[in-house]
Amino acid sequence: MNADTPRGPVTLHASDAGFEAAFTDLLNQKRENDPDVNATVAAILADVRARGDAAVTEYTNRFDRQSLTPDQIRLTADEINSAADSVDPALLVALRQAAERIRAYHRRQMPEDFQYTDDAGVRLGSRWSAVEAAGLYVPGGTAAYPSSVLMNAIPAKVAGVDRLVMVVPTPDGVLNPLVMAAAREAGVDEIYRIGGAQAVGALAYGTETIRPVDKIVGPGNAFVAAAKRQVFGIVGIDMIAGPSEILVIADAANDPAWIAMDLLSQAEHDTAAQSILITDDAAFAAAVADAVEEHLKTLPRAGIARESWQTHGALIVVEDLRRDAPALADRIAAEHLELAVEEPEALAARIRHAGAIFLGRHTPEAVGDYVGGPNHVLPTARSARFSSGLGVLDFMKRTSLLGCTPEALALIGPAAVTLAGAEGLQAHGLSVALRLK
Amino acid sequence: MNADTPRGPVTLHASDAGFEAAFTDLLNQKRENDPDVNATVAAILADVRARGDAAVTEYTNRFDRQSLTPDQIRLTADEINSAADSVDPALLVALRQAAERIRAYHRRQMPEDFQYTDDAGVRLGSRWSAVEAAGLYVPGGTAAYPSSVLMNAIPAKVAGVDRLVMVVPTPDGVLNPLVMAAAREAGVDEIYRIGGAQAVGALAYGTETIRPVDKIVGPGNAFVAAAKRQVFGIVGIDMIAGPSEILVIADAANDPAWIAMDLLSQAEHDTAAQSILITDDAAFAAAVADAVEEHLKTLPRAGIARESWQTHGALIVVEDLRRDAPALADRIAAEHLELAVEEPEALAARIRHAGAIFLGRHTPEAVGDYVGGPNHVLPTARSARFSSGLGVLDFMKRTSLLGCTPEALALIGPAAVTLAGAEGLQAHGLSVALRLK
Repeated sequence: MNADTPRGPVTLHASDAGFEAAFTDLLNQKRENDPDVNATVAAILADVRARGDAAVTEYTNRFDRQSLTPDQIRLTADEINSAADSVDPALLVALRQAAERIRAYHRRQMPEDFQYTDDAGVRLGSRWSAVEAAGLYVPGGTAAYPSSVLMNAIPAKVAGVDRLVMVVPTPDGVLNPLVMAAAREAGVDEIYRIGGAQAVGALAYGTETIRPVDKIVGPGNAFVAAAKRQVFGIVGIDMIAGPSEILVIADAANDPAWIAMDLLSQAEHDTAAQSILITDDAAFAAAVADAVEEHLKTLPRAGIARESWQTHGALIVVEDLRRDAPALADRIAAEHLELAVEEPEALAARIRHAGAIFLGRHTPEAVGDYVGGPNHVLPTARSARFSSGLGVLDFMKRTSLLGCTPEALALIGPAAVTLAGAEGLQAHGLSVALRLK
Repeated sequence: MNADTPRGPVTLHASDAGFEAAFTDLLNQKRENDPDVNATVAAILADVRARGDAAVTEYTNRFDRQSLTPDQIRLTADEINSAADSVDPALLVALRQAAERIRAYHRRQMPEDFQYTDDAGVRLGSRWSAVEAAGLYVPGGTAAYPSSVLMNAIPAKVAGVDRLVMVVPTPDGVLNPLVMAAAREAGVDEIYRIGGAQAVGALAYGTETIRPVDKIVGPGNAFVAAAKRQVFGIVGIDMIAGPSEILVIADAANDPAWIAMDLLSQAEHDTAAQSILITDDAAFAAAVADAVEEHLKTLPRAGIARESWQTHGALIVVEDLRRDAPALADRIAAEHLELAVEEPEALAARIRHAGAIFLGRHTPEAVGDYVGGPNHVLPTARSARFSSGLGVLDFMKRTSLLGCTPEALALIGPAAVTLAGAEGLQAHGLSVALRLK
């Protein structure tokens, strides 16, 4: 099936003979078709590396229709504050409530060090420390979401990052006040009005005015994603996020209009987004489909949402939710999993792969996008099988500690000498053996 | 300075005027020059994806000079056991001791779930689960290290990976008995005699006989590294390791012969390896340099070690170890950091970036390569600034949990509606607002 052809959401019945093939098709749907911009990006990165501020400023002026000099790239505290102060106070209150809840949740993620001496007298330990400097990419224009600034910045600050540097393009010089307010609320330390591959290059290599960072996170377009991949190794990067997706598991006791809106809340993000319902009631599935059509009549982003729903949406009917849904949910490994059932905790316990789980009929996914507390940067495209949402660990790293006394080395050293010999690494063996004499 | 020209290890004095420039040069040395094999690898991966076993078998027979049929790719239990049983019993004992120590250390890394209800009545949680299936790449020939099998496989099994699949090429049909013994000891579930990009493709996409995995770890040559990068996203991968490196911080109370052997234990790995000494005594630095030359007269791998030492080695003399060494160590961010000083814990506490720290005069790095307990798969090339050694977390992922009662949603939902409105995402806001009525 051509993923680009809207065909109406598919309805699949798990009891049908063709179900397995159709479900596999659904899983294998290609939902992204980023252009290959690697060569363009490589040239920009090389130029930024070689010429620093001059290159960054030139690209910024060209792509964002600006006329900046290098000393104007960094936003002053006055610029940030006057933009942030212009935000509607009710919005500032909501941002603050969101930030506080996100901070409280992420504080629980702080890992613990350990230290012990074992039976052989060997001192062993593990010590976490924060990345020193992190860069946060924030897209410009309509894709600039203040919630995303909070979700990326707060875990870094909770982890203990000393220097959190934000880059955000300001096409035609337009600054987004809400983004400034979110950055201030989250404790961002430096903000530069640059974007694209040139901003990623500046963060990775540093320039005369921007000191390099150790890790770069945050969403961006194809150029930004390619640039992050190319600088990976010089700095750490977060995952490259794909289009958003939601799987709702719902019984017939739900209001179809609620569930339909939940499906649309992902569909409205992006025509490549995917919304799937699993239910045990064909009539309920049909009622949800009808409710989707009804909502689409009035939603401002109906054009995007309709294309997503018709191209990638699916309604799956199984016989028994508790028995049949977990295996399907694990194969989908959804970014967002909503369990609109009577005993959501019991169902959640039976499902292994999901980025985030939303429990019960009164927990729409969107509440988690803003104020729930857990992060909304989550693994997409089935990568919840092997990866996690953004969190404080993404801004920390672990150092192992090992200490031997002469007596401890006498107990464990001989095995090291034996194994080093078997591997043909004599200096390895001798570095131990010299101390055993 | 051309990194490929051996120039003898540099000696740098921190008090010299040119120190900063020379030290920066040392940090920026290019120590790797992998050929660009991306196009070749892409073709092999596409072929494996399209033709499965047939492609894997053809490449294996061609590159490894074999004449296998697809049903012979998987090693039988008899083949594994008879190879493993042929190993010298003393080696099996050493392997077992290493495995037990590695297992004990990694068990301490198991993360904890959490669950709580906050003041707003919102149920919040975080749940860790293991990756279902992991693939372990093991190089063939001389680079096949049984210790590396233990270090990669044991964390996966401690994490709870259900299915651990090893691939190892057997050029000319030669099986490495020690690798088989290590795989058996570590609890590897399936072993296939394949390697190269074709093996990575088989693990990522699956074939008729090899079910796909969710994550691929383990070292390999340029083809394997490129293949891992290309399948990243379909599966998770570990870091791409660069040449090994050691930083030894040692005072003059050490035996120069011991410290010299520690430096050589990294240098013997690879001509691109790097060994650096920081000391506060110029005469001690000279004595270590002399001891290196003395050891090189008899070391079997002297050719490799000498080239590494002469091309990338360095002796750095500072005035005061406690005062001057930490800042330099953090800029080097070494894979292995040995603290051969009187109070190693105090010095360790002042250093933030290192993959693994070895404490005191009786803890040569090599003991950690085999039997210390912590992992020997560690971040190289200054990536300890932002990444960690391999551990159980690499085989696990986290799911966040969020649950609202109607009352809790009434408390936190309005802020979500406000923020969704500001971001222009109406369906997001409505999915919450519908439930607030």
